Amino acid sequence: MKAAILGATGYTGLVLLRYLMNHPKIDEIFPVSSSSVGESISNYDSGIFEKELLKKVPSGKMVSIDDAKAGNPQVVFAALPHLKSAELCSDFYGKSVIIDLSADFRIEDEELFIKAYGVKHPNPTLQKVAVYGLSEWYKDRIKNANLIANPGCYPTASLLPILPLIKEDIIGDDIIINALSGISGAGRNPSPNSLFVKRSENANAYNPGTKHRHHLEIKKEINFENNKLKNIIFNPHLIPIRRGMVVTTVCKLTKSISNADISRIYNKYYGNSSFINILKNSLPETAAVISSNRCDISWQLEGDSIILFSTIDNLVKGASGQAIQNMNIRFGFEETAGLSVNGEL
Amino acid sequence: MKAAILGATGYTGLVLLRYLMNHPKIDEIFPVSSSSVGESISNYDSGIFEKELLKKVPSGKMVSIDDAKAGNPQVVFAALPHLKSAELCSDFYGKSVIIDLSADFRIEDEELFIKAYGVKHPNPTLQKVAVYGLSEWYKDRIKNANLIANPGCYPTASLLPILPLIKEDIIGDDIIINALSGISGAGRNPSPNSLFVKRSENANAYNPGTKHRHHLEIKKEINFENNKLKNIIFNPHLIPIRRGMVVTTVCKLTKSISNADISRIYNKYYGNSSFINILKNSLPETAAVISSNRCDISWQLEGDSIILFSTIDNLVKGASGQAIQNMNIRFGFEETAGLSVNGEL
Amino acid sequence: MKAAILGATGYTGLVLLRYLMNHPKIDEIFPVSSSSVGESISNYDSGIFEKELLKKVPSGKMVSIDDAKAGNPQVVFAALPHLKSAELCSDFYGKSVIIDLSADFRIEDEELFIKAYGVKHPNPTLQKVAVYGLSEWYKDRIKNANLIANPGCYPTASLLPILPLIKEDIIGDDIIINALSGISGAGRNPSPNSLFVKRSENANAYNPGTKHRHHLEIKKEINFENNKLKNIIFNPHLIPIRRGMVVTTVCKLTKSISNADISRIYNKYYGNSSFINILKNSLPETAAVISSNRCDISWQLEGDSIILFSTIDNLVKGASGQAIQNMNIRFGFEETAGLSVNGEL
Amino acid sequence: MKAAILGATGYTGLVLLRYLMNHPKIDEIFPVSSSSVGESISNYDSGIFEKELLKKVPSGKMVSIDDAKAGNPQVVFAALPHLKSAELCSDFYGKSVIIDLSADFRIEDEELFIKAYGVKHPNPTLQKVAVYGLSEWYKDRIKNANLIANPGCYPTASLLPILPLIKEDIIGDDIIINALSGISGAGRNPSPNSLFVKRSENANAYNPGTKHRHHLEIKKEINFENNKLKNIIFNPHLIPIRRGMVVTTVCKLTKSISNADISRIYNKYYGNSSFINILKNSLPETAAVISSNRCDISWQLEGDSIILFSTIDNLVKGASGQAIQNMNIRFGFEETAGLSVNGEL
Repeated sequence: MKAAILGATGYTGLVLLRYLMNHPKIDEIFPVSSSSVGESISNYDSGIFEKELLKKVPSGKMVSIDDAKAGNPQVVFAALPHLKSAELCSDFYGKSVIIDLSADFRIEDEELFIKAYGVKHPNPTLQKVAVYGLSEWYKDRIKNANLIANPGCYPTASLLPILPLIKEDIIGDDIIINALSGISGAGRNPSPNSLFVKRSENANAYNPGTKHRHHLEIKKEINFENNKLKNIIFNPHLIPIRRGMVVTTVCKLTKSISNADISRIYNKYYGNSSFINILKNSLPETAAVISSNRCDISWQLEGDSIILFSTIDNLVKGASGQAIQNMNIRFGFEETAGLSVNGEL
Repeated sequence: MKAAILGATGYTGLVLLRYLMNHPKIDEIFPVSSSSVGESISNYDSGIFEKELLKKVPSGKMVSIDDAKAGNPQVVFAALPHLKSAELCSDFYGKSVIIDLSADFRIEDEELFIKAYGVKHPNPTLQKVAVYGLSEWYKDRIKNANLIANPGCYPTASLLPILPLIKEDIIGDDIIINALSGISGAGRNPSPNSLFVKRSENANAYNPGTKHRHHLEIKKEINFENNKLKNIIFNPHLIPIRRGMVVTTVCKLTKSISNADISRIYNKYYGNSSFINILKNSLPETAAVISSNRCDISWQLEGDSIILFSTIDNLVKGASGQAIQNMNIRFGFEETAGLSVNGEL
Repeated sequence: MKAAILGATGYTGLVLLRYLMNHPKIDEIFPVSSSSVGESISNYDSGIFEKELLKKVPSGKMVSIDDAKAGNPQVVFAALPHLKSAELCSDFYGKSVIIDLSADFRIEDEELFIKAYGVKHPNPTLQKVAVYGLSEWYKDRIKNANLIANPGCYPTASLLPILPLIKEDIIGDDIIINALSGISGAGRNPSPNSLFVKRSENANAYNPGTKHRHHLEIKKEINFENNKLKNIIFNPHLIPIRRGMVVTTVCKLTKSISNADISRIYNKYYGNSSFINILKNSLPETAAVISSNRCDISWQLEGDSIILFSTIDNLVKGASGQAIQNMNIRFGFEETAGLSVNGEL
Repeated sequence: MKAAILGATGYTGLVLLRYLMNHPKIDEIFPVSSSSVGESISNYDSGIFEKELLKKVPSGKMVSIDDAKAGNPQVVFAALPHLKSAELCSDFYGKSVIIDLSADFRIEDEELFIKAYGVKHPNPTLQKVAVYGLSEWYKDRIKNANLIANPGCYPTASLLPILPLIKEDIIGDDIIINALSGISGAGRNPSPNSLFVKRSENANAYNPGTKHRHHLEIKKEINFENNKLKNIIFNPHLIPIRRGMVVTTVCKLTKSISNADISRIYNKYYGNSSFINILKNSLPETAAVISSNRCDISWQLEGDSIILFSTIDNLVKGASGQAIQNMNIRFGFEETAGLSVNGEL
């Protein structure tokens, strides 16, 4: 099978390239970067071994979007800047299955999109057909989708532990989500705020309350699952790790509930999952999931409240890994093909 | 003036030593370490320049507690393990002003102490005379105290932003405190959990809800200030920074309130403070306060909730710096003497 | 095929476990830890996903050495402390192929061993049959070996770039090797020198000149290849990275030589290698090889001197990865089976 | 006394600002940034406490170069980009003592300057009067200088341990300098190579041999001190620390020499120095000197070679601290005024 990566020079594009190089069902890859056409990939990303790359990218070079079109890839991953994705994906729609890693197709509602992003969606037709690609929750839709909106990293890590409790309707009106993100979440464009000297030995909250764009993506999913609207306060922080995300969520329980009950609920929703790891006697940590597509989850009951803990690798389950998982689901491959379930030491 | 440091080889002891070396009112220092008597300090801590040390520590070596007693120091800093402090401080009480950096004297109530630490206090008489040394809040008591219980790092960073709002009685019943701490908070004893390979590129919650000992210290102070009992959920996290602490607190407001109101409240309590920095247009970050005795504070109104942000250096305002500040208050020195108000670049 | 890991709780043991879990030819693994028999592995190392582990470690637990013996593994990896390895390997010799990751069998000469380690070798018979497992250089011997002494990390990174030049006899008498190592090289035992607070934002030389044990291992190999004895100054440094190693070597050339000549030499020795990456227009960096079994190499001519640059992941090509590579060579598997040639992003 | 900082928004400019705020002889500071005139400094650098800043910078804002001129500062620190410094310093020459932290005046020789920087010096007259400000070596000239060329970080750390041996003429023809630098050495301009995600967990050599501009600055000083020309190979590396530098130098001895001899030599040159710390039984580490103006030095004899070790904080002794030290020397202040001799914990 052939795959194209639109935006192959960003972090998520380069992680996708690694996964596709290792994927047993992928024979050829078109790494597209309009600004770097003809540039050698191994010079660009010194982690990729050129000898190996040449097996699936015969030229070893970044190609143009026209090259990718000419190759008729069965699957196209779009790892492009906001709104750019909506534009370029249109060209492939109907010919290839599109897995979009941008935020362009995550909000199906036109009004909500305007509220979140301040502009009208450039392609409302596509907007409506897109399927939200939170793999564990929308498998049936993903199987038949031709446009999959891969979720954001914060929404993935926040939603996975809370959705089962929302489904079971045991959560009160106020949900307070505290999140810590590694610096790769800010992308590869050089900015003063992403410099080593700025970030090492530093940590801070940013865009708190309802200011972060992922707030609305989380809110939409939580309220979609249940007709009682929740208030969500979402406080993201930057911490000096390259990859990884910790989410700690506090909410009230609407009824008395035991640890065994919670355990049963998680087992009901995730008992057969390949990547959800429900911890019994410990709290999750980011290092355990780095380079894996896992989400580690645990909880603690505290009076009439419950505290939820979850960790992911923001570049894997929070981006490129979940995109591969969605490809696997869509094409009927083994769900773990090309992915790792163990974190690196 | 002469000063002793009991437990001079720990992180807080060594930071105290630096501050006392630079303090204009201190002439002689007794660095006590019962396990390292006679050992050269500059060999022990390569950051301290022996040439300079000799000006105030003539031997340049760790001394015994008997040496310290023989020296009749006017002030004794106790940076000792739990319960060890209560024991050794007794010997100096009445002769020297004692500033205790352990948790031994932070809880005046006998029952509460047992609840927090699982044992009866070894010296209930001293327990009752100790003054809680949150400098900005108990200046009058500190001025006359002979035993000052220096606050913990989490309580300092958590209480400074919230106490004004508690005093003004505008906060609802539930307070959710999310805290991030640097690794030095775990102290210098080698443990698998404090290794570089374990902590670098890692982050996780630990002792959440009500499990951390500082939970009770925070709760006691918040409820001491107001007879309406608050529920406090306190979720500490470890993040890979050496020093520094970020606290993000969410609570409901009991009345409609504006940014100008909050600004006025903070100005009322901290307008004349030397170390409290109320930020107007930005959120605090740990790097800005490292090596300074500052606490940077800001807030955000969100619907009927308020989010509070605060940062400190856990080893300075959260430990040794506040101890020096308390000495300055107690002895009538300038409050900033020997301390820095600027963070290192 | 069945494999045992003696010393499964150390860094190299746990990395081996990951590789064996992913290896297509391994069906069952015996993770041996005499101090942790019966302890759950996934509790011990939160990066390993228990669901997956159970496929090859049915109990999911650490087992005893007797369990491992009873299992009759075809291959035994020994990741044990110094001298302990020599002792335990003897029990398996003749029944299993042994790949020893300790330093116990790297020096074949009895006198030299005493010089390096200060004690007589506990098993001189085995000492003599052991084959030094620098994969790219001793493939023929490894194919027939029943005891393979896996090289140290510093020797691997130092020898790979210099051995071709030694073989071609173009290097002068003095070789100056400067090396930078990640902290995992110090192993997992908690020590004050390996704490996060000690190592983050810190760097220093240690055991310089001829003091490091790897000095002799390097010297032996260089002089083994050529009867002209070289003086080697080896200056290792600790830098705050978890994994990774940079080696910068300076030596005089004994004849005039061009970049094309050097290129030809490296191509002669490594042109068909699966893991040696000769860089043309850039200098190697550690991040590019992390989690891969690669060694990236480049050079620069400078007057009558040559400067060599090399990087490896100390836990992979410098330990567990090369061990797997040696297993692959020994058993006739594909040399890259179970290993990665791309570094993580 | 009044001081101006040209280029106050760079790392060295902001560190200078901190030192001048703490300096007992400085009453007023003009922080000049032509691109940020009127911008609040405490917004720009959140580490500086505005309340304190206002004591010496009444407006609390960045000012223009004309404001600085109008203020008639007795001393001007130029922390400007290459060649920009030579241009702006000319305006102040003769009116203020100039301490230039750029590379513009470090090479007095016109031909050598062209060789080093590829262009003709824009102001050869000033070029000739500039005094190289390696404080410990040129005190007499600095005392009378009106233009002081503050040395580079690599030259400072490399020259301090080797110059005494050069003076004593005991070093052979080849000097191999290996250096590790923190990322702040690359300055504050956002570049892909300075991002946290690029630099954390990464290390590499760059501009080796004779390629780095500091190579010539080091060579000039070494050869200036002795008419026997030395070959210098200078291999700088980037390692993931914010601040700090380790230099490890290997050279042959031209005569038999003992540790006591070396000790005597260092004592002769640095026995009375305020900032040079000759270690007897340990190797220097960067963490020990961070935020201090110290240079820690030690050595090891190895056959007929000597290995030298030195560490500095690149932003302090390697830049802003040495600039303050030079001001102190020039104006007859105590040499340590405003500076620290202890590294931060």
